[in-house]
Amino acid sequence: MSKANLQKWYDFVEKHDTKALSDMLADDVVFHSPVVHTPQEGKAITFLYLSAAGKVLSGDNFAYVGEYLSENGAVIEFNTVIDGIRIDGIDMITWNDEGKIIEFKVMLRPLKAVNKVHEMMGAMLAKA
Amino acid sequence: MSKANLQKWYDFVEKHDTKALSDMLADDVVFHSPVVHTPQEGKAITFLYLSAAGKVLSGDNFAYVGEYLSENGAVIEFNTVIDGIRIDGIDMITWNDEGKIIEFKVMLRPLKAVNKVHEMMGAMLAKA
Repeated sequence: MSKANLQKWYDFVEKHDTKALSDMLADDVVFHSPVVHTPQEGKAITFLYLSAAGKVLSGDNFAYVGEYLSENGAVIEFNTVIDGIRIDGIDMITWNDEGKIIEFKVMLRPLKAVNKVHEMMGAMLAKA
Repeated sequence: MSKANLQKWYDFVEKHDTKALSDMLADDVVFHSPVVHTPQEGKAITFLYLSAAGKVLSGDNFAYVGEYLSENGAVIEFNTVIDGIRIDGIDMITWNDEGKIIEFKVMLRPLKAVNKVHEMMGAMLAKA
């Protein structure tokens, strides 16, 4: 179940098809940012964060490098390099019984990477 | 396989038995800190970090809240509160065929949590 749902996420990351992203998200999905504590609730704000994150993090250096599954969720590890700063992170995704994403959490390391993404996401979201 | 190895880790976290921690670590284990990029290589330094992290993060508020498995690894999510700062994090553990830990990576969110753990680990490791 998680494996099939996860494939849809990988397809989105490859193709940046925002319609596919919108279709994947449950109406009451909650996004947990790597930077701020406050959960971002609902499909509209989660869509905004995930499409902005896609733009900020993607690029030639981006690759998923690990995959861990639970019954209704997955943790996938990624690496990238932005402006010479190495970023190691995870997407932690939870799906409901209909295969829609109900929770999306991102964590990053090291500290420099968190600060870099903070700066870039801030600029991207200010434009949006 | 990962499940049985993981149980040994949970036992260590509960009992803080440093002999058990030492037995779990491969000689060439590598620790990846949530704060600094540079990998910490070898059993001695990894032992130091993991026993210090145990002291810094543990307490009444600490709990593991999620578990994700791969063939030879696991990601376990934890929550805690230190000095009023909410910390959400993962331990990403990889075992070799002998069931010893060969890689241990920690990521935290949000930014305040990374800064808090940075400050506390610095103080703890300076004393060690």
